[in-house]
Amino acid sequence: MLFATLTDVTLTHTDRLFALSGRARRMPRSPIRKLVPLADAAKARGTKVYHLNIGQPDIETPACMRDRLKQMDARVLEYSPSAGTPEFLRSLQRYYERRLGISLELNQVLATTGGSEAILFSLIACADQGDDLMVVEPFYANYIAFATMAGLNIVPVTSRGRDGFHLPPREVWEATMTPRSRVVILCNPNNPTGTVYTREELDVVAGFCRDHGLFLISDEVYREFVYDGRRAISALELHGCEDFAIVVDSLSKRYSACGIRLGSLVTRNPEIYDACLRMAQGRLSPPGLAQFIAIGADALGEEYTRDVVAEYQRRRDVLFEGLTAIPGVFLQKPEGAFYCVAKLPVDDAEHFAAWLLTDFQHQGATVMVAPANGFYASPLGVSEVRIAYVLNVADLRTSIRILDTALRKYSG
Amino acid sequence: MLFATLTDVTLTHTDRLFALSGRARRMPRSPIRKLVPLADAAKARGTKVYHLNIGQPDIETPACMRDRLKQMDARVLEYSPSAGTPEFLRSLQRYYERRLGISLELNQVLATTGGSEAILFSLIACADQGDDLMVVEPFYANYIAFATMAGLNIVPVTSRGRDGFHLPPREVWEATMTPRSRVVILCNPNNPTGTVYTREELDVVAGFCRDHGLFLISDEVYREFVYDGRRAISALELHGCEDFAIVVDSLSKRYSACGIRLGSLVTRNPEIYDACLRMAQGRLSPPGLAQFIAIGADALGEEYTRDVVAEYQRRRDVLFEGLTAIPGVFLQKPEGAFYCVAKLPVDDAEHFAAWLLTDFQHQGATVMVAPANGFYASPLGVSEVRIAYVLNVADLRTSIRILDTALRKYSG
Repeated sequence: MLFATLTDVTLTHTDRLFALSGRARRMPRSPIRKLVPLADAAKARGTKVYHLNIGQPDIETPACMRDRLKQMDARVLEYSPSAGTPEFLRSLQRYYERRLGISLELNQVLATTGGSEAILFSLIACADQGDDLMVVEPFYANYIAFATMAGLNIVPVTSRGRDGFHLPPREVWEATMTPRSRVVILCNPNNPTGTVYTREELDVVAGFCRDHGLFLISDEVYREFVYDGRRAISALELHGCEDFAIVVDSLSKRYSACGIRLGSLVTRNPEIYDACLRMAQGRLSPPGLAQFIAIGADALGEEYTRDVVAEYQRRRDVLFEGLTAIPGVFLQKPEGAFYCVAKLPVDDAEHFAAWLLTDFQHQGATVMVAPANGFYASPLGVSEVRIAYVLNVADLRTSIRILDTALRKYSG
Repeated sequence: MLFATLTDVTLTHTDRLFALSGRARRMPRSPIRKLVPLADAAKARGTKVYHLNIGQPDIETPACMRDRLKQMDARVLEYSPSAGTPEFLRSLQRYYERRLGISLELNQVLATTGGSEAILFSLIACADQGDDLMVVEPFYANYIAFATMAGLNIVPVTSRGRDGFHLPPREVWEATMTPRSRVVILCNPNNPTGTVYTREELDVVAGFCRDHGLFLISDEVYREFVYDGRRAISALELHGCEDFAIVVDSLSKRYSACGIRLGSLVTRNPEIYDACLRMAQGRLSPPGLAQFIAIGADALGEEYTRDVVAEYQRRRDVLFEGLTAIPGVFLQKPEGAFYCVAKLPVDDAEHFAAWLLTDFQHQGATVMVAPANGFYASPLGVSEVRIAYVLNVADLRTSIRILDTALRKYSG
């Protein structure tokens, strides 16, 4: 008995030597990227892989932004102010004025390193370690990484494919809330579902947050991408949310400039702004070259977004028609962003997604999809995949044909 | 009594409504930037302000890096791999081989958004909320911001000006360590003190970490900046530290490119690398334009660093001679980086630093310095300031004259 106890102590001690933190061990691998080694192996075998798994648009970054690189004549690539350069912040001010009809002060907008940093800053500002973050599932999978970094637990509020992944009614929010719930994060238009929330459903969540004193983080990085004449409602436009709404935004998708890592955090709550600014001071400044070229976007007219959206709507139509024609595949018509979550006639979509890369090819090609279970906190989505439609129409048609053929051959 | 209890409960409830997190409230304002409003007011009055407070080098970013902006012909500014582009990682590999004589695998080097992100990733990977971080004080003030974001408590290990801010002996480390100490962070060459640690003193800390199973984060962003023929020893070169050393690095100072926000995290511990990679996947990718121009640095010969260092050594000499000639000012000769911590003949350096901006000018000019108390976790450094010598020699001479005059007039 004494010996056992000593052994235990020794083990515990050894165990702590150079042991990773618990949160490091819990940090998930990206569900979008974890099948990458299998895809690499397929490509090495000479199989062409159509990527339906990642949201990297193939649309060109506007020339008026890229051309600014040639005009850069600073001889010292200096730190920018922690909040962002005045030029970039004013450009964002003009964008929100033009796009949402909203006047923002310069100290309500913070330039961030992508939308990612805006999410991390918001979570840390709104909640403490051990607090709960309410998230509508399926959700952008990287929310788990940010929540883990911030030490927050995810409390999922489930949306259902049969409802087109629209938001559940207030009673579900009430029933799901915990004593440690401090903050709600919504993604609208939604990644991964492609759902665009109506003003009415957003008002329900806003009312829920208001009544319980919860912060509302609204991730609106797909704001431009809405179809069939829809309009994405920003949390900045909702009535009476000034005290608790934080908008996460990004230039990545808006201008097909994912690699520049530039985003913004917008809030009218001066305390939240100030806390995020202090975090921003800690990391000194957001990327400078990105801010320099970003203001080139001021030259873009309405037609830029209209044309890009028309192209995505075409793709959405091709994808939706193609997928619904496959026996056993179910999805509602996506309303925005450039993703959908489709239910497949398979028991285990993760196994199927791996099989597509390891055991299948059709005329020398296959497709890569993201298993949807990684987008849920609950054990749901096992038969679902997320599909991104960032390929051109011809490639998309080929991909759907491959998927159709694969599903007929697959018996998993 | 009942009434009092109810009031308490009500207050507690109200208090929690839309309340910032505790860590957001604790997040410090940058001690380097908090006097900025006073400096702005001085400039608005027409006073010229010499900035001795910030470490923004005036040296040009090498043309071979800037020129690459003109060669950028990608039409889509895409995400890069989360770990960094292969080209940039190979460039870093070559740098460490050339500079430190060390061969690193590609999966031991992670591209990060500045050294800042490498620090945050390391802290989160090595320690959990509530754990202790041992830091030699005075320290880079933003460590407090990162520790607060990561939920870690700072346990200061004090270095003394009379010892040239060299590391204390092992018994001080042993006496300072707590049961929750998980990780040590060193900055070498040191910001803010300008001290360059010897191999012997680094070996003491490494031995201490090894014996207690603590991770060692070595912030080496000033590696190139060492004077009088010194060489900065990297934690990668220390014997037997493979399992627990993590190097934080940055291109900001090395190539005077602070604004591009590009750094790296280097570790031979595969678990730490993997945990940091999963965090990196969460934020998708490091800045792409920065990685594209960074590989231009491959064209730089030895003479680039030699010339830059010679220029800083000249400035260091001017500063050291000038400051030590002022009655009551004390500092040891800085050995590296481009900072020093000097003791001034004042009771409250923060008051003096503010007074320089609000109540003093000499021939239409004044100087801005960073009060050193913000670089300590203990209540120390109240008579000390951090001075950055990133101005040219003429401006530096003028700044010293102004400081001398100010100290004679000041009676705080």
